[in-house]
Order: sequence, then C-alpha cells, then structure tokens
Amino acid sequence: MINKNNVTKIVLPESDIPKYWYNIVADMKNAPEPYYNPQTGEKMVPADMEAIFPKSLIEQELSKERYIEIPEEVRGYYQSFRPSPLYRARGLEKALDTPARIYYKYEGGNATGSHKLNTALAQVYYNKEAGIKRLATETGAGQWGCALSMATQMMGLDCTVYMVKVSYNQKPYRRDMMQIFGGTVYASPSEHTNNGRAILAKDPNCNGALGIAISEAVEDAVLHNDTNYALGSVLNHVCLHQTIIGQEAKRQMEVIDEYPDIVFACCGGGSNFSGMAFPFLQDKLTGKSNVQCVAVEPMSCPTLTKGVYDYDYGDTAKMAPIAKMYTLGHDFMPPAIHSGGLRYHGAGALISQLYHEGEISARAYGQLSVFDAAVFFAKAEGIVPAPESSHAICAAIDEAERCKESGEEKVILFCLSGNGYFDMTAYENYLSGKMQDSVFDESALQESLQKLPDLKK
Amino acid sequence: MINKNNVTKIVLPESDIPKYWYNIVADMKNAPEPYYNPQTGEKMVPADMEAIFPKSLIEQELSKERYIEIPEEVRGYYQSFRPSPLYRARGLEKALDTPARIYYKYEGGNATGSHKLNTALAQVYYNKEAGIKRLATETGAGQWGCALSMATQMMGLDCTVYMVKVSYNQKPYRRDMMQIFGGTVYASPSEHTNNGRAILAKDPNCNGALGIAISEAVEDAVLHNDTNYALGSVLNHVCLHQTIIGQEAKRQMEVIDEYPDIVFACCGGGSNFSGMAFPFLQDKLTGKSNVQCVAVEPMSCPTLTKGVYDYDYGDTAKMAPIAKMYTLGHDFMPPAIHSGGLRYHGAGALISQLYHEGEISARAYGQLSVFDAAVFFAKAEGIVPAPESSHAICAAIDEAERCKESGEEKVILFCLSGNGYFDMTAYENYLSGKMQDSVFDESALQESLQKLPDLKK
Repeated sequence: MINKNNVTKIVLPESDIPKYWYNIVADMKNAPEPYYNPQTGEKMVPADMEAIFPKSLIEQELSKERYIEIPEEVRGYYQSFRPSPLYRARGLEKALDTPARIYYKYEGGNATGSHKLNTALAQVYYNKEAGIKRLATETGAGQWGCALSMATQMMGLDCTVYMVKVSYNQKPYRRDMMQIFGGTVYASPSEHTNNGRAILAKDPNCNGALGIAISEAVEDAVLHNDTNYALGSVLNHVCLHQTIIGQEAKRQMEVIDEYPDIVFACCGGGSNFSGMAFPFLQDKLTGKSNVQCVAVEPMSCPTLTKGVYDYDYGDTAKMAPIAKMYTLGHDFMPPAIHSGGLRYHGAGALISQLYHEGEISARAYGQLSVFDAAVFFAKAEGIVPAPESSHAICAAIDEAERCKESGEEKVILFCLSGNGYFDMTAYENYLSGKMQDSVFDESALQESLQKLPDLKK
Repeated sequence: MINKNNVTKIVLPESDIPKYWYNIVADMKNAPEPYYNPQTGEKMVPADMEAIFPKSLIEQELSKERYIEIPEEVRGYYQSFRPSPLYRARGLEKALDTPARIYYKYEGGNATGSHKLNTALAQVYYNKEAGIKRLATETGAGQWGCALSMATQMMGLDCTVYMVKVSYNQKPYRRDMMQIFGGTVYASPSEHTNNGRAILAKDPNCNGALGIAISEAVEDAVLHNDTNYALGSVLNHVCLHQTIIGQEAKRQMEVIDEYPDIVFACCGGGSNFSGMAFPFLQDKLTGKSNVQCVAVEPMSCPTLTKGVYDYDYGDTAKMAPIAKMYTLGHDFMPPAIHSGGLRYHGAGALISQLYHEGEISARAYGQLSVFDAAVFFAKAEGIVPAPESSHAICAAIDEAERCKESGEEKVILFCLSGNGYFDMTAYENYLSGKMQDSVFDESALQESLQKLPDLKK
C-alpha cells in the first residue's frame, strides 16, 4: 500500500492493463431500449448494421455479457500508452485551499492527445479480423480522425476521413497529423460521394457540418465491400471500449486506499463519461458504494439538463440508428463553441437511460467559466487541458470550493480526457478577452423537438 | 527481472527518480578549459556571473564534484512527469526488418512537450532560494520559454520572455502557451530594454534574432536586482540538470538486462545530448563499457562536424561568457530550418572538449532525410516527433539499416527529446513537397571564423 499523502501520480505496471471491458448493461435495472432502423422506422435487427460494421462489433453493441475480453493484440497496442497515469491534484488543491482531495485520470498523454485512441484500436482490430481493408469516418475538430488514422496505420488498414470543411481550412494542424499517420483527408462536402456532390451542386461554397460528413462516410462504407464505417462516440460498443479508463482509475485509487465520493467527466456523445464512470457505477448499481457520477456538459448544448428523453435520429442525415436518448432534436444546431467534441445533439443511449433511472446526474457550465477553470488548472497543475475536458475540471473546482465552505474532506475524481495543444486558438481568444459566453436558444430547442421521428412500434 | 522480449515500455516508480545529477567533469581526462569575460577578455571569476545567476548555479557551473544532490522540492516537481518512459521501438524494428534492438527514451510526455522542463524547474528553484522574484530569458521557437514559464508559475516567480519577433508573429501557439502559464512575452526587439530600443530606432521593422533577444534578457536581469537570467542549454549547469535522462535510461535498461552499444541524441547547444549521453559516457570514461555516444546535428549548422575548436563568444551580442568550444563563429547565421532548437553556432564546452578528446563522435544529416525519418517513425511508433529529436531518429534508423546489412544484433538507444505537436507547419511543408533540403555555406563559415575573440591569456 502506497501512502496517499506522499504520492503525486499513480502509475500501474503494464500487467494491470484491464483484460476485460466492462459492459454496464449486465448491471442495469432495465434492459436497454431497442434501436430502430432510420430508413424503415422498424425495430432494428443486427443484419441492418452489417453493411457498415463487422459482426463482432454489432455483437458487442447488443451484448448483455458483463465482461468482454480484450483481445491480446489490442492489449499489446494499449501497452504503449496504458495504464494512463492517475494524478493527485496537489497544485490545484493548494491553489483552491480546499479540504477536498482531488484526483484526475489523464488520457491526453498518448500520441493523439485524447482517450479516443482506446476505441480506435479496438474498432480497427475487429474490422481487420473481418477482412476489412479500409475504414471511413467523419471528424469535426479532428481528434477522432487522428486516433483512427493512427490505429489503422498501425494495423495496416487504410483510412478515409471526411473532415468538416470549415475545420479542414481553419484547423490544418490536426489535418496534417492525420496525414502524417497515413490518413486520406477530404474536406466535406467532397466530390468523392453522391451525398457530397449533391450538396456541392446546390451550394459550391458549403462549409460542411458533422451531419454531412457522417453521411459521406457512411455512404463510402455502404458502397465499398472492403470498407466499413467507424464512429468515435455515442454507440454502446464505443462506450464499452472506454471502460478501461475507469477500471484503471479504480485500481489506482485502491493502491492508495482511496475511493471517490464523486466522479466527474465531460459528456457529449458520452464515450468519455461512460469510460470513466461506468466501472464506478457498477459499484453503485450492485450496492457496494454510494458514488455520485456526474456528466458535465456545455450550457450551449445541454442535452441531459435541458433535452427530452425520447426516440431520435443519431445524426442529422438520418443514417445512424434511431435510439431512445436525451436529445435536443437531431436538427438542433448548437452555437459554435470551442468544445467541438461536445456539440452533439444527444447523449448515448445507455447514459440516457441511466440518467432517466436516476443513477447518474448532470451539470452544465458556460464557456467562460470553463476556460476560467482551464487556465486556473493549467497554472496549478502544469497541463493545458482540452476545452472539452475542462468541463470536468470546472465541475471539480466548483465541488472543491463547496467543500471549502462546508469543511467536507470529499474525494473528488475527474477525467482529464485530452490535452489542449491543438486548441491554442481558443485559449488566445480567451486570453485576449474576446471569448463569448455560452448562449442557449430555447425557441430553437422547441422547434427542433417537433421533428422527432415516427416509429412503427 | 523483466523479460526484454515481452516489454514495450519500461516505466520506473517515482522512487527511482535519480537523487543526484551526474557531473561528468569528475571523470574527464582533463579539467575543463576556463571561461573568459566577454567585456574584459580576461579569465572569468565567479563574481563576474553574479549579476545574472544565483551563487548556487555558478557553483554548479564550476563544480568538480561527481554527484550533486537534487533538492527534495525539485524531485517533488519531477514526480509529475518523471521517470519518463523508455520504449522498445517494436514498430520501428518491424518496419525496418532489422536485427538491431532499438530503444528510445521519451522526454516529450510532459506538459511543455520537451526535456527543457528538467532544468527549468531546477533553475527556478535555485533562483527562488536566492530571493529572486523574476526570471528573464529569450526564446526562439518557444519550447524553452514554455518550460520556464511553467516552472516559474509553479514556484510563484514571475517570468519575462523575449521572443524573437518573427517567431512571436509566426508561431502564436507557443506564445499562447507561455501566457497560459502566466509568462509575460515580448516580441524582441522590444521597447522594454535599451538594447531593444536602440535596434528599433535604427530599424523599426527588425524581425529580431536570438542574439538580440539574449541581449535584452540579460540587460533586463542586470538592471533589476530582483531579476536573474536563465538559459536553456549550452552551460554546464544546464547540461548537469539533464543527466537525470540518461541515469533513468540506464536503470530502465538494467531492469530488462540490456545495455546500449550505441547512443544517439540530437545536439544544438547540447543539453539534450549531455543529459542522455553523459551517464553512459561515465561507464566509458571509467573503463566499464565501450558504449559509443554520438551527437547528431543538422547539416546546415554542423558545429561539431565542420566547426573549429577554439575560444568564441557564446552569443552574437557578446554578453555570455567566452568559452572554448566547437564553433562556426558567433556571427555564423545558419539557414532557416525547422529545427530551430539546433541552430546554435557552438556546442557546449564540455561536449566540445569530450569530442576533441575523442570520447564521443558526431554525425550530421540534411533536413529532408530528417523529415523522412520523422514521418517513418511516426507511422511505425505512433508519436509525432519534434524536428530536433528527429535527427536522433534519423541516425538510429541509419544504424539499424547497417545492422540489417551486416546482420549485427546491435542495441541502439536514442533520446526522443520532444514531441512535434507545435511543428505541424513544418510537417505540412514536408508533406506538400515544398521543403528545401539543407544547405551549408562554406564561405560564410570561413568569414565568420575570422571574428573569434582576442583573449588576455
């Protein structure tokens, strides 16, 4: 046992990389709600997904098994960056003068700078096993595109990334990084798909949107037998792969005889939140702890805190499965904020159901508070955080300040899902005082909620 | 003992962070050559340096003690990012199909992305101990400025960085990062010093140069009692602080029962090379091994491979000590290459002497070969390397290819001193085929060698 009072970072040996992913479905009160086919409006069957996903991932998507073994080859790739470190935030505690003990799990230390690599490696592995030669995907800011480019490169697959055109032009560095890893990157809408060409025919100057990029990538996968589609968040199997984060964190806290009272993670589609929170939530669902798991979202895209729990399309192009989830409506267009990774209209189905069942809670913060927290954290801890991850930091600081008022010695744990090396424009915007605070358009929400799908139940 | 055939990265516990820095002076054949005062041309005495450095660092600069204890507080700061990992380059070995075993020590995993933080924390500590409230420094590309800004922030000192104006304008992201860490950054030449104002009076549009920035920072330190100057490379105490790199690497190889036949590190001023090579060189100097230590430099600034071993000014402004070193002449202006950190006209005094005595060797590579190696490495190992560090990669690949021809199972070790997150413009330049190869201007060298100083010996 290591004395928690002497430790700054807890590093586990490679042998402690989890051997299984944890599937929370096995411990949930109710079975997950079924998916619906966006084309037919009928209940989805596994075969509906085979045009774009390998059978092994579809099985994981629908699995009820508690533990799913991580293939040896995937664990081998994890070895180069896992187990990721858990830090005691001594600098932050001191700067806040709080009686709380604050810990964070840092997922930004790998080459692509975020937790996305955990699922990218798994998805590429299963696609390779299925004989697939190329993966197509979309990317906004580019973190997911980088992770998938790197993973395909390492296992010898090709990768085509449809990158939202405005990002392609404004954020060339992540585009460069994808190309360094051998990815082919197209500005979306592109001339390479029917969907892209149709949009360009109407509007040659179209700046693109994530929904368009998804439809191009899915079309690419559907039309080419050797090509599948890969998604970086939202779906159950993606959330599943991320559970190595929380499993490692549990083990790391165990080593210093700690256990969190409260766990924070940012939440867009939900892969980071699931990855961090689900292994702790397992303890709660099985009566072993009272840990509070809190999803932190941007005030300008407040899916859990202001959305409705209903069936909706997973994407604006209506190509992804229809799922029951907290949603702002698939047409809802959140304002441009610097946390591009959290601008998704819905929350993953499992997170939504757990939230609906009262097992987890959610908080929303505005952009200026989030950047205040990000810079405060960077000065105290020496890591420049990604804007997305800074939502979790913001909530953790908030909680620690409450502890200061109440005198509570709470144990706070949060996930630092990525670094902010590629977000310097956002920081410059903040430091120069030009950053806008979040706005939320209530009437746009009411309007987009009119467009939820009709299902054949 | 861990089986070397099963391991991808070797991570040591915090308790294995070295307790001492290793001072190679204690094991060198000959005593170091003295410094000369650039103003008087006479032998320098310690008091000459007290206007800009604390006594403790001057003592380290001139020390003959073999081991110098690392203060507990500095080790505490090291805990957040050290020991840094040692990787077995399995992906690279496979891609090269070489019988050589390749290892690299990765110093780019900390928040500022390079090894510079090792000495920044030490220098800030000793200055703080001496009652200094602020540090002034210069920075080119910005890695050193980031490291010093972060270190001063963590220990509560202020930091003023004179950043070469062309970089200030062209590389805003590192400037932003310094500001996030609380550093005050001025474009140099600035209106804040006599040196800066004098230059701007003559040429208001002057783009700046490292020599000008040094002279501004030194002036700032000389004129303010509460302010000292800090340098990121070249000097003995800077090289000393970096020896934790090589000490950790030795221990990591010991754990898997390995020892390098050959060690590569890039070399500009020499802090990275010293840090990596000196602890191994200790074995060679004391007859315990035959390890070959190779400094790798850019063909366009080939200090060791084409320079002369003579006394020269440390900077173009003639304010730093005159030292006996391999030099291209303090007026030599290397062409603009993307490895800004290696564009120094000389090599540190200790490295120069060891090279002169035949204890180490040197190789030079052109820019295109270096970027070929960088991209090859990124694809094989999944880390985008800094252009500076890629010189070591290039030499290691070269060596591994020779092993393939000869069938030798050599153990190759190199230092990956930093990541390339902030060098995407360079990669874009390379990927688009626009990158120029290195050029070396022999007649400029002959001209600049005419300007070596006269000393009163």
